[in-house]
Amino acid sequence: MRFFKFCGICLLLLVSVTFASASDAELRTMAKAMFQPVPTVAPILKGNVASDAKLTLGHMLYFEPRLSASQLISCQTCHNVGLAGGDLQETSTGHGWQKGPRNAPTTYNAVFNSVQFWDGRAKDLADQAKGPVQASVEMNNTPEAVVTLLTSIPDYVELFKQAFPTEKSPVTFDNMAKAIEVFEATLITPNDGLDRFMAGDDKALTADQKAGLDLFVNNGCVGCHDGLNLGGTDYFPFGVVEQPGAEVLPVGDKGRFKVTNTASDEYVFRSPPLRNIALTAPYFHSGKVWTLTQAVAIMGTSQLGMELTDQEVELIVNLLEGLTGDQPLVMHPLLPASTASTPQPVLQVKLSPTH
Amino acid sequence: MRFFKFCGICLLLLVSVTFASASDAELRTMAKAMFQPVPTVAPILKGNVASDAKLTLGHMLYFEPRLSASQLISCQTCHNVGLAGGDLQETSTGHGWQKGPRNAPTTYNAVFNSVQFWDGRAKDLADQAKGPVQASVEMNNTPEAVVTLLTSIPDYVELFKQAFPTEKSPVTFDNMAKAIEVFEATLITPNDGLDRFMAGDDKALTADQKAGLDLFVNNGCVGCHDGLNLGGTDYFPFGVVEQPGAEVLPVGDKGRFKVTNTASDEYVFRSPPLRNIALTAPYFHSGKVWTLTQAVAIMGTSQLGMELTDQEVELIVNLLEGLTGDQPLVMHPLLPASTASTPQPVLQVKLSPTH
Repeated sequence: MRFFKFCGICLLLLVSVTFASASDAELRTMAKAMFQPVPTVAPILKGNVASDAKLTLGHMLYFEPRLSASQLISCQTCHNVGLAGGDLQETSTGHGWQKGPRNAPTTYNAVFNSVQFWDGRAKDLADQAKGPVQASVEMNNTPEAVVTLLTSIPDYVELFKQAFPTEKSPVTFDNMAKAIEVFEATLITPNDGLDRFMAGDDKALTADQKAGLDLFVNNGCVGCHDGLNLGGTDYFPFGVVEQPGAEVLPVGDKGRFKVTNTASDEYVFRSPPLRNIALTAPYFHSGKVWTLTQAVAIMGTSQLGMELTDQEVELIVNLLEGLTGDQPLVMHPLLPASTASTPQPVLQVKLSPTH
Repeated sequence: MRFFKFCGICLLLLVSVTFASASDAELRTMAKAMFQPVPTVAPILKGNVASDAKLTLGHMLYFEPRLSASQLISCQTCHNVGLAGGDLQETSTGHGWQKGPRNAPTTYNAVFNSVQFWDGRAKDLADQAKGPVQASVEMNNTPEAVVTLLTSIPDYVELFKQAFPTEKSPVTFDNMAKAIEVFEATLITPNDGLDRFMAGDDKALTADQKAGLDLFVNNGCVGCHDGLNLGGTDYFPFGVVEQPGAEVLPVGDKGRFKVTNTASDEYVFRSPPLRNIALTAPYFHSGKVWTLTQAVAIMGTSQLGMELTDQEVELIVNLLEGLTGDQPLVMHPLLPASTASTPQPVLQVKLSPTH
């Protein structure tokens, strides 16, 4: 799949001259062949039928700091609904002020990614939600402790019953993740400039953004950043042509290699989706790059082997700024009180054997 | 003022027999002499005229993690609008995972307290808001850094202009605090059981809650916990009759003494308000007590010199559970993106000279 796409890039490079002064109609036809718009309603989930009860529960659990051992860190901490589903950190800060290994990907439109995490190690959002809860540098909890905690709060027991009405013991770690997935599937951002342009509104993108779109497609950015999310659906090496320096691509993080243990997967990552990218600095899995201008220039050299001119970079950045869709308005849920049997927060940090 | 109130307690103790089987009407008359209901609209603030623009800005700033050096901690972190304006911690956890010295008081109805903080060192909510932003164990920031950060984000500059339209340079630390105060003044919880009972609804409190109310007033709890917020308006020693052990009243925290340097203020604290108290465990400035049952029993011995029976404690706890009002429904605000000139997060922890 990866190689097929790169052949696609070569083809696109060859025909780029044709599109140098594409009309709105031509540009629209080209864009619609490459991208699909963000829908206005949450998609149907595989193996997880949505319901109002599941959505209510998932909404609460997304904001629930008691899913973490410290009772301080929730999904919302690193995937802030006020900050386009990300945080403002190079890599996330978790339990004990420990730094996580990678930049927090946005939860917005994440339901449209074919796999989750930078290395694609989770097949869907429910699978993904279980990871940070258990990671020692994130929420530092265990499935058993989560179930004990939720079971100690009668309101949650009732909400799980309503969300999973056919199950005898509905308060489970898996059901926690399924409810969160249903909520996250509603975090979608339709109507950005690109989507309105594709829908027929010539004025939805500025002239610079259209020039940026032309460059984005014809220079080959689209080779990794296509589809509904402009990315998020396939794996590519960071450094197709030339690896960036260790300040951007730390040598210790070999990406998907850690999942597959296959040499060809060294420094391979799932291409990040680009919707709302202007709102979610810093960039790359390392979070080492703070501006889109620098990020686009690096992509030019490392992935395309091109020194993009400053003007070309700025035009592409203009396009990326046109990928900011309608942000979902999320009510902060009211969370039920702990009870006398609710376990207390655990703030201690276990030192690893190497300490 | 304190001594007058304690005389009041003595008087009430003397007449308590009279109220042993108070009728609803008698109980209501007594309650209305002691308490005022939580209003349904935000009160007018001294020296800080509210406006929609100030409210919008204050709402955003309350949720703004970029007010902290790490860009991770906001007012909302320790005063969670999903958790009745508190956190779930013994004492709050802040910058560098450091533990703060005292339990986070709720921001709900805090506008009705006559002074802020456990030791009353801030005269109002605007004054209060500036404290945690600068505390090294909380948000670890400086007024100058806050202004630099906010000024780097054009949307904030515009919002400050709208909120403070007559000022030439409206992006100031003081104005940040004023906007937050306007938002916090909306975090009020009317219509709890006590207020509905006082308004004439005999069924707003259960028989046990009414018995608890009778005990609360006639045993003297009301000596420190009266008025609109059932507390929050005056100072009292923790241990009027008998100091609790160091596990509840740590010897190192001398309360208001630190503010006034007056011997008689040792272990003196502003009495905590009791509205929504059932939602904001753990209790006391030390946060060492996790149930209302234990908290009420300790208050009996330390403040009133009474061994309350288990039944009396439970009746008073019943009353306290009737102090949960309508929780405000708060939208999570959308926060503007950082720009290329926005300072990056600073996660480092400065060690104090004693380290």
